[in-house]
This record gives sequence, C-alpha cells and structure tokens, in this order.
Amino acid sequence: MSEEHFDVVVVGAGLSGLSAARRLQKRNPQLSVLVLEARDRVGGRTVSKDLPAANGVDQWDMGGQWVSSSQTHVMELIQELGLEVFPQYTKGKKVHHVGGPQAKIKTYTTSMPSYSPLTMLDFTLLLWRIDRLTQGVSVEDPMSSPNAELYDSMTLHTFMEKHIWTTQVKEELALCSRIVFGMEPSQISFLYFLMYSAAAGGTLRLLETTPGSGQELKVKVREKDKGGTQQLSKKLAEQIGKERVRLGAAVTTICQNSENIKVTTSAGTVTCKAVIVACPTHLAAQIRYEPALPAERQSLTHCLPIGHMMKFIVTYPTMEERRDAVISSLVKYLGPEASTYIHYEEKDWAKEEWTGGCPVNVMTPGMLTYYHPSLRKPFDRIHWAGTETATQWCGYINGAIQAGQRAAMEVLAQMCPSSLSREELDAVRASLKQRKKRKDSKGKSCKCYYLFGAVMTAAAVVAAYLLAKPELGFKWI
Amino acid sequence: MSEEHFDVVVVGAGLSGLSAARRLQKRNPQLSVLVLEARDRVGGRTVSKDLPAANGVDQWDMGGQWVSSSQTHVMELIQELGLEVFPQYTKGKKVHHVGGPQAKIKTYTTSMPSYSPLTMLDFTLLLWRIDRLTQGVSVEDPMSSPNAELYDSMTLHTFMEKHIWTTQVKEELALCSRIVFGMEPSQISFLYFLMYSAAAGGTLRLLETTPGSGQELKVKVREKDKGGTQQLSKKLAEQIGKERVRLGAAVTTICQNSENIKVTTSAGTVTCKAVIVACPTHLAAQIRYEPALPAERQSLTHCLPIGHMMKFIVTYPTMEERRDAVISSLVKYLGPEASTYIHYEEKDWAKEEWTGGCPVNVMTPGMLTYYHPSLRKPFDRIHWAGTETATQWCGYINGAIQAGQRAAMEVLAQMCPSSLSREELDAVRASLKQRKKRKDSKGKSCKCYYLFGAVMTAAAVVAAYLLAKPELGFKWI
Repeated sequence: MSEEHFDVVVVGAGLSGLSAARRLQKRNPQLSVLVLEARDRVGGRTVSKDLPAANGVDQWDMGGQWVSSSQTHVMELIQELGLEVFPQYTKGKKVHHVGGPQAKIKTYTTSMPSYSPLTMLDFTLLLWRIDRLTQGVSVEDPMSSPNAELYDSMTLHTFMEKHIWTTQVKEELALCSRIVFGMEPSQISFLYFLMYSAAAGGTLRLLETTPGSGQELKVKVREKDKGGTQQLSKKLAEQIGKERVRLGAAVTTICQNSENIKVTTSAGTVTCKAVIVACPTHLAAQIRYEPALPAERQSLTHCLPIGHMMKFIVTYPTMEERRDAVISSLVKYLGPEASTYIHYEEKDWAKEEWTGGCPVNVMTPGMLTYYHPSLRKPFDRIHWAGTETATQWCGYINGAIQAGQRAAMEVLAQMCPSSLSREELDAVRASLKQRKKRKDSKGKSCKCYYLFGAVMTAAAVVAAYLLAKPELGFKWI
Repeated sequence: MSEEHFDVVVVGAGLSGLSAARRLQKRNPQLSVLVLEARDRVGGRTVSKDLPAANGVDQWDMGGQWVSSSQTHVMELIQELGLEVFPQYTKGKKVHHVGGPQAKIKTYTTSMPSYSPLTMLDFTLLLWRIDRLTQGVSVEDPMSSPNAELYDSMTLHTFMEKHIWTTQVKEELALCSRIVFGMEPSQISFLYFLMYSAAAGGTLRLLETTPGSGQELKVKVREKDKGGTQQLSKKLAEQIGKERVRLGAAVTTICQNSENIKVTTSAGTVTCKAVIVACPTHLAAQIRYEPALPAERQSLTHCLPIGHMMKFIVTYPTMEERRDAVISSLVKYLGPEASTYIHYEEKDWAKEEWTGGCPVNVMTPGMLTYYHPSLRKPFDRIHWAGTETATQWCGYINGAIQAGQRAAMEVLAQMCPSSLSREELDAVRASLKQRKKRKDSKGKSCKCYYLFGAVMTAAAVVAAYLLAKPELGFKWI
C-alpha cells in the first residue's frame, strides 16, 4: 500500500477510532479516511464471542459489556445502528466474598449484602464524603478543582486510611477499585479517582446497576436477547466501508513534515494530512513519533498503567442462578453442581498484545498535576482519542465514542471548518485553547477532622440516605 | 547483518550493557558477544562534551557525572581502565533559592545554608526518621521490609505532609526529590524512596558531597583534571572490540523460540542463545517480545515514569565562582557579569529519543507491592540489566555497572557454569530463586505519633547529630 494518500488516518479500530472515522465521513463525505488496526478484528476492548449455552450457541461479551441510559453518546449510536438494549439481570442469589480466603462467604438475594450498623454508617459517610468531593471536580480541567494538588499527591489508599473506620469498608472499597479499574487503591491518584467518578456523574454510578448507572444495560440485536457490544464496532466498520478499515496493520511510526504526515505500518506506508491516535495510551507509547512528542505528552503516554482484569464465562444446562459465577470459585461458592458445565471460556486482556490490559489506563499520583494539559492537546496534526481522553464516562464505551467524535471535530475544525456549525467551531476552539494557568492550590491542604460528636448527625444522614435510595444495589462481580 | 549468530546479544551500549558484555568476555573468552546500540555513540545517560572554556577546550559531563569512594563497582572499573578521580569542587559562594520566585535568594560559603533553629530541628528529626526507616528496608526484597505495603501505598508527599512541621523543610525535601529523581514527591512511592536510599547506604548519601556520598568525586584522565564519565564506556567498548559494539542498531523485536532467539533491529536480524536487555525500562517497553512478556513484567516496563532533568553548562573567562551556575538564573543570582560568558551548552535528556528522560525510572505507589518480583527475574533467556535493576546505588553509574555484571553472571550460570566459582554460582542461583512468599504486612499500619513533650528529647538528638556530623553539607544544585 505504499504511496497511498488519505486526508485523515485513524490509528485503532476500537469504538473510539471508528466513531472518529464515521463522524469525519458524515460531516464531510469528500474526506478520504483510513482506519488502521493492528489486530485482525475491530472492536478493541469490546469483543463478543459465540459460546455454546443451554439454548444453543449464544453471543457473550468477553470485554466491555455494559451501557447506561445516562450515556448519551453510546445510546445515540445504538439507536442509529438499529440495535437495542436490555437490562442487566440482577435477580436471584448473589455471592459476596470479601476479606481474603478465610473470610465468611455471604449469599444474599436483596440488592446489597447485609452489613452491621457501624459498617453501614461508615460506608454511607464515605460515599457521601466522596460524592461531595466529586461534585467539586472539573473533568475538563481537574487541576482547577479545590485542593487538586493535594488530592493528586495521595493515593486512593491514603484517603481510605485517613477516612474509613472499619476494616470491612476498606475491603469493600478496595474491591470497588479492583472492579472499576482493575487496580489496587494504592496504585491510583485520589484526584484521578474523583475525576473518573465525576466523568460518570458520581461514584455510585460506577458501581450500581440502577437506571443511569454504569452496569444498567446490555446491547442486543432487535428482538433477540443477545448480540453484545462488539456489534457496535462491526456495524460502524460496515458503514465506514470495509476497504477503509485495514486490519493487520500495526502502526510503527508517525512522521510529520511540513508537507504531509507519513504513517508507517507493518504492511507499508500511507501519507495523510491529519492523524487521530485512538488506542490506549500505553500502546500509543509504542509508536515512534518524528519529531518526538513533547516531553509532557511523552511522560503521559509512557506512564499510565493499565488495569489487569480477566473475564470468565461458564455456561450451564440450567441457567438461572449460575450465569455469572467465576469458575475458580464456583464449587466453593455454589456447590458441587457447579462442576458440570457446558462450556468454559476465559479472557486475559493483559495477554492480548494490542490491548495489554483492561479496562483503562489510569493515572498515578502527580500525573494530573504535571501532565494533564497534554492529555487532549493535539501535537501539531496528531489528535488524541481513546476512552482515556474522554470527559463523559471516561474509561467506558461511551467515553470511547465521545472522545473519538471530539477528535474528529478537532480535525474538521482544522481541515474544513465549514462542515461545523458556529457553535461547534467555538466549542472545539475553546477546548483547544491553552488552559488558563491553574490556581495555585499549594499549601491549601484540606483537613477534614472527624469529631466524635458528629456521629449523631451522621446517623441521621444514613437514615435519610437509605430512605431516598431504597434501590441501593452495588454490583460486586 | 542477517543470519549472523552470537552466543549473547546485549541491548544497549550504556555502562550497564557494556559492563555485562565485558564481564561475559572476561569470564569466558570463547563466548561471542554482540552489543546493539540505537544511537551513534556509547555511554547512554553519560555523555562528555568538548566545550570552550577559559583554558581552552575542556570536557564536560552533560549527564551522570559523579562517583563515590563507597561505590565499589565503579571505583574498581575506573582503576581497571587506568582512569582517575578528583573531588567535586565545593568551595566559594553558593546560591540557595527555594520556595518559588518570590522567595529570598540566600548565598552562603559554609557547607549548608543557615536555617532557623526550628527548621533545623524539623530537618534533623526528619532525616533521622527517614534514616531509621531506610535501615529497615531490604533492597533485594523490599516487600519483606516492615510496613512495606503501607509505605508503598503512599507517596513521598503524603509522608512529608504527615511528618514535617515547617514549610521550609517541605520545600527543601521537595527540592531533594527534584535533584535526585527529576520528579516531584507526589510522583514517587515512599517505599521506593526508602529502597533507593537504602541502595545508596542512606538518604544523606544521595544529597552530600562528603566522602562516601553520591556527589563526592568526578572522573578524569591521569594527570589531567578533565575527562568525564563517558570515557568509562568508550574504554569499555574498546576493550570489548569495536566490531562487537554495533551503533545505529535500534532493537525492535526479540523473538524467543525453542531453537534460538531472534533479535531484529533497524539494520537487520541476528540470532543468539541469550539476551541481556540493558536499557531504561520505558525503552525496553518499546521492544516487541515474542512470546509476549508475562503480565507482571509488562506492567513494570510500561509504567515506570522517568525523571525529567535538564543540564546547563556555562563557561566564563574567570572561572572561580560561577562554574556550576544555571544560565536562566545567572544574572539574577550572580549579577550582571554573568551575561558575558564564553560558551553556553544545554542538554534536555527528555528530548533524546534513546534516553527519553533522566536520571532514572522511578516507581509510583503500588509498583513495588505488585510488580517488584519481576524486576530482575529473567524471562526465559532474556535477562534484565540497567541501573534500575541494581541493588547497590540503583539509579547511579555504579548501579548500571553492578546490574550489568549481575546479568552477565546469570547468563554465564545458564550457559557455561564452569566459568563461575562455586560461591558465585550459589549467589546467582539464590537470587534467581523465587522469593519466599512475603510476610503479610496488611493491617499493620505504622502509626508514629508525635507527642509535644518529645521536643526536648528531639533537641538533644539534634545537638548530638550536629556534633557527630560537622561536615553536614547538602548539595543543592
């Protein structure tokens, strides 16, 4: 494919890259767009697999699987592609095992496990405190938030040690961290955690299955209760045109010169006028850039760890209670019948060369303070997409789509501004404008002392909270 | 160079790679060794440059420049290569400017700036506390140290917020962090900081110019007061043989199969029986490994940020007082004469593609807890060198040499054990053996309460400390 020329090249055929390409095409059909994908499939961190189940072969999501009614970008795309959603199944017996192998295994059928009143109080106060902090955080410019520098200098673990009284709540929050980020609380900047919560509209939304929360809905084909999220990418790729999505083409070099941009892949070189890099940041770090990336952006691409999650799916002849159980603990948790399964399937995302981990690149302490301004800032004609760069539901499917569309708008604003409305142009330009020098929050440490006498007030808060949110239902697995 | 075969290929011709290659050759002259280097020079993060000065052209270190009498590996190498050392010049006026642009500029000619008694007390207590913690840390297996998990879950900044009373000491320690790591305290795991100090024999050694400390000596040619540290690599490369050190050969892929290992570079492919990767971890992350690295090692190579330091050298007709001044602040700090210089030279290591930052890859919170076991653990026939993997003066020139030699011994133990003594073999095997399951330090949080009444005791400690260490002389620039 040497010497081919395109207007825009998109690196990565996950949801972000494909959304960017589709947006470009739709806004300006004259633009020639090419999507380059290292793997032999589209979809990135979403992949749906045919697995034998009780009612014959069914499709199962081995990666990102949930969407939510509050996620406007993905809901719009689902509608546009003629797909549908159905609610996550949450009925029946749930297993709750936290606190190490020796801890008691609890089962429950309500929306959350039972806790002691003290644990419940501690948990509620914690969530209230985190939510209050989350509300003060700007996702677009997190360093402008109150106490930003202080919160970015500590880990989520440090915050937990300071503000949680009970061992059980510490263990529960650590579990939440593993579920949401695939990482331990000691590995994550507390400010990043707040920013991530804010991008989802609140911490509880990261955990719950209730309307508007992150685990609310799954994606299906019309009139069937199956399908999976990879369909979004497959259908997008069809719309873009299969000849415009090149598989097996891993990008190795992006070389910008005064004339054009040369993008070299394992399968040859193409030239173009703008590039959208839409892969996880740690994979963007494996590309060689000429000229080299600015130091700030380089630090960002090199240093964002990605979580580590594995997914197991086991199908059974009787499907009611055991659908989502984890294989290694099945017999222990569900009894000896768990061993007579139809099919066992596992997916370790860390072993996928072109993903390398799951679900998202997170930020360690100090990253936001020193490198955040380069997260979405284009490097000349290279633009950055991927769910890591999203401001709405970053880390989620919705974030991938939003970020891809935002990067496409940046390219359009640069190459053919007439394809955008006045408001859209203003929005792109405003977001590209160098952020104002952030307020110096140094020295303003936030000390939130706990008075023992506050317990009475707190108890009242718990009561009010539970009355207001009877549906409080965490999703633990 | 296609189809060439060697016994061992070393990736990187910095001090670590060259030390590894030399050790292999010396222990077994039958072994064929090839060193592959991406740049057009040897030396990695050490580079000495000819710059015009008052007495004609002189050589100046633009990267790593100090060695110490306590650094046995580099001192031995210096002697072996027929080079010499001379003490770092510390006399005359020093400039001390901490606390932001508005802060007062202090000058002093003693070994350290003057502080108020309270600041001095705070500083001394802090150093005493850190040194006590450092003494408890195992560099080989940091997670076996007391409170390891707790200390790895917090940043150096969190520790500072907890244990420093005065703003001035906070600012001084932040400055130390910038000088030693090229990073802010909020970006570094506190346990990593302790481990790094322990590998140097104590925190003060990271800062001082006194005998045994990190900034004690510089490297020179016999009978001249010049030379620089790059000579170490140049002379090593000569000993190894220029045809065995291939420049301009950036490694892109390391493919291990049952027969041999294929190492692909920008200039062709070689095969071998073992590989030593001796580049900074974030550059090792840019190599493609087949089969892929284990997840743990992959996380480590992807996620260790590297510091950001720039070096300025300005030469003057009269050289006494201004030798080490920083160009951007010269006139402000030293008066208008500072503007009449002979030569200005700067080096931004972040802009060097094959270094990408300076001085060292550090660890963020949680990295030691979850990934340390893979730091030196060979991946089949791929061994890991580089100063990041050292246990003595890691991050320093000495660490590079020690790590290179250690990796060479691992390869020898695998390929030709008869070239090692019984004791050496035992040592290699012991260090390769899977570490014992570390003690569970969870929940044992270290609470070091400060009682106001302790001030009297503390004051006595300060007095004793200063009496015992009259040479206490921090190096601030």
